[in-house]
Amino acid sequence: MKIAVLGTGFAGRTMAAALAKLGHEVVIGTRDPHATLARQDTDTMGTPPFAKWRTQHVDVALAAYPDAAAAAELVINLTNGMGSLDALAAAGTRNLAGKILMDIANPLDPSQGFPPSLNPVNTDSLGEQIQQAFPEAKVVKTLNTMNAGLMVNPGRVGGGDHSVFVSGNDADAKKAVTSLLQSLGHQDIIDLGDITTARGPEMMLPVWIRLWGALGTPDFNFKIVR
Amino acid sequence: MKIAVLGTGFAGRTMAAALAKLGHEVVIGTRDPHATLARQDTDTMGTPPFAKWRTQHVDVALAAYPDAAAAAELVINLTNGMGSLDALAAAGTRNLAGKILMDIANPLDPSQGFPPSLNPVNTDSLGEQIQQAFPEAKVVKTLNTMNAGLMVNPGRVGGGDHSVFVSGNDADAKKAVTSLLQSLGHQDIIDLGDITTARGPEMMLPVWIRLWGALGTPDFNFKIVR
Repeated sequence: MKIAVLGTGFAGRTMAAALAKLGHEVVIGTRDPHATLARQDTDTMGTPPFAKWRTQHVDVALAAYPDAAAAAELVINLTNGMGSLDALAAAGTRNLAGKILMDIANPLDPSQGFPPSLNPVNTDSLGEQIQQAFPEAKVVKTLNTMNAGLMVNPGRVGGGDHSVFVSGNDADAKKAVTSLLQSLGHQDIIDLGDITTARGPEMMLPVWIRLWGALGTPDFNFKIVR
Repeated sequence: MKIAVLGTGFAGRTMAAALAKLGHEVVIGTRDPHATLARQDTDTMGTPPFAKWRTQHVDVALAAYPDAAAAAELVINLTNGMGSLDALAAAGTRNLAGKILMDIANPLDPSQGFPPSLNPVNTDSLGEQIQQAFPEAKVVKTLNTMNAGLMVNPGRVGGGDHSVFVSGNDADAKKAVTSLLQSLGHQDIIDLGDITTARGPEMMLPVWIRLWGALGTPDFNFKIVR
């Protein structure tokens, strides 16, 4: 499948590399490819410059948001949650229309210090805002409740015996996303319902952040035991 | 131990009965014991009248909030989350001072329809509001992320192999609550940190409610796989 991963950070790169390894034709979308390749600094999370990463992942292309989205059958949003609506607008409404848009971003606002706040929260979610802004895209919220390493390799902890959620209005889009998740090794995929149910997984981020602190590692996931 | 359970609903009764069975001296606190015993209707959740339940649980006493709290070494808040601050005020600041106050309530506001909203949310929590209102109580938020049956009998699902959180400012209080949780059968008790971390487990309620809908049963719990 032709897949565009929007976002050049650690999560975007991890997802892009994993999907390329599965045989998909993957392009990473960014605002300005020249600027992305010109950066030479390691970011605050210790992520090396994109150009350096790229030398080890020549099977992943890089393109501007609109070009990446236009060529893709499925678009994955792994941009910073606070900038996702802008990034998707840059990708272009027409380039997203009719396509599955996997939204993995979390709208965490660090501007008021630690811990970050969720914005929107409670009666609204980023997943819903994206669906409203791009009504012809088939938005499926998923994978936002675990770190990037677990997204693409759930077997990293507990033999992969943990859960992932999908929320979205389009049954066929959820089915396609479910297949993709299974191909990444996810075993327990729970369909929560329409896109309004994305509030639930997004609102798990505050406990996720505190668990990271309490456990001393982000390598954990939620299993729904029943 | 002398324990007061505030709240006469299904969760309060379930907790009171389980603690009495473990040998604790348990009193249920209510606003007006005469009114509680006089009610003859089954509530909207199918819970039978309190007086009827009481005939099968003669080892559990009933008292007004202040009397119940005054006699107790440990107080458990299982009142409706939207009314918890009022109920605790009725119990009395002096009757809560110096005591462990296990807060299990969730501040779910059903006034805007389904799904209910959390209020407070995001940068505040009911656990924190209770600690602020009763600074001499040792508030420990716990057990709010599962149904009442699982609170007292975690073995109901998955052999009890799932997790429960504690949040609070007082290390000894969290230690005492941890012991009580272990006596109920909880195996994986995760200390998230101070009372501000109660935001995390409270914000799990939206996904909990959606999971109930998706799974068709409230008999599930979160396990933190790591």
